[in-house]
Amino acid sequence: MKKQVIIVAGGKGQRMKADFPKQFLVVSGKPVLMHTIEKFYTFSEEIGVVVVLPGPYIKFWQSLCKKYNFKIPHKVVKGGKTRFNSVKNGLKLIGNDCIVAVHDGVRPLVSNDTLERAFSGAEKNGNAIPVIPVNDSLRKIKHDNKSKPVKREKYFLVQTPQCFRSDILLKAYEQEYNEHFTDDASVVEASGEKIHTVEGNEENIKLTRPFDLKIAGVLLG
Amino acid sequence: MKKQVIIVAGGKGQRMKADFPKQFLVVSGKPVLMHTIEKFYTFSEEIGVVVVLPGPYIKFWQSLCKKYNFKIPHKVVKGGKTRFNSVKNGLKLIGNDCIVAVHDGVRPLVSNDTLERAFSGAEKNGNAIPVIPVNDSLRKIKHDNKSKPVKREKYFLVQTPQCFRSDILLKAYEQEYNEHFTDDASVVEASGEKIHTVEGNEENIKLTRPFDLKIAGVLLG
Repeated sequence: MKKQVIIVAGGKGQRMKADFPKQFLVVSGKPVLMHTIEKFYTFSEEIGVVVVLPGPYIKFWQSLCKKYNFKIPHKVVKGGKTRFNSVKNGLKLIGNDCIVAVHDGVRPLVSNDTLERAFSGAEKNGNAIPVIPVNDSLRKIKHDNKSKPVKREKYFLVQTPQCFRSDILLKAYEQEYNEHFTDDASVVEASGEKIHTVEGNEENIKLTRPFDLKIAGVLLG
Repeated sequence: MKKQVIIVAGGKGQRMKADFPKQFLVVSGKPVLMHTIEKFYTFSEEIGVVVVLPGPYIKFWQSLCKKYNFKIPHKVVKGGKTRFNSVKNGLKLIGNDCIVAVHDGVRPLVSNDTLERAFSGAEKNGNAIPVIPVNDSLRKIKHDNKSKPVKREKYFLVQTPQCFRSDILLKAYEQEYNEHFTDDASVVEASGEKIHTVEGNEENIKLTRPFDLKIAGVLLG
């Protein structure tokens, strides 16, 4: 089936101590978001790429593409107030009968194997989300400033790209927004689908802290 | 109160694709374990350091100390079959009336601030363990290959050093081993103490995968 990806880069970067949003920070010679787009293009040159950007930064992005001579074809749409709205805006450009990945713009370290597993998994089961085990001990916070240990083996961390058959994702995003929607899997799950997991890759971190940028600098070479 | 640290480096490195255990891998010019010991010595030159090593590697460690001209004073004890037993062996060298930190030998990226918070916290409350928030979405595994999203804000990841007043830790380690003992906090908790948390530092990862070593290489400079 045809592949599409919505790369969500709507964040305005309040958590990263930087002058501009973190998807535009330069790592290993170019902005993070360009590395991210390249990963999908390397995986499949046929993929349809939709990038969701904060409205005030669309022109800036276009100037960056010119400056870095960035030629990978992609469409740009304006983000919404929340991630839910941003994905919804991206979905307006998604056709029927394809597999849609929704991916964080600030995850440039996704591996080709993870992409393969996520897209194939969604083609087979309707959806597939990449997960990795929890490596540290995990505690659950209770009230009164108390906490209790929980078995980390019973949990996993969820990454992106989260991949879906387009009909399933489009239908799910017709729902009203609800605060329990923390990612696309939770939106699709609320529409009645069972979520399928595939193995992610540990390097595929979300660049949210200055420390993460250093890591990305090394791993992007 | 006097400070002591038990650095647990009993692992034999089966998870890391390396010729010898990961605590001995050279990163930024010297073995990981030397970096770890240095962090505590930099924090306090008065600290008593006990290193728990796998029996067959004790001579190897001594030869490394010679080779790298490593002069920070420390005592070495032989590890046990499990982490619980290794800590127990280390505790034989710990006196009364002090604060004891138990730290993973493969966490050389602990910050001075985390050490300060953990030792002071334990002096004030009897114990203190460093924790960090969960940055990715989190799902809990249920039976039948199903999973459900949980609120990541309700959880945190636990690091080391976990610090305790020595009388509390010594008493806790008199308990029989039980499979729910995943870290020192869980041992102390089982003895009836309430666990106190302090802020850790994100960089303080446990070096368990080849990817982590690259990160350590950058951050140790």
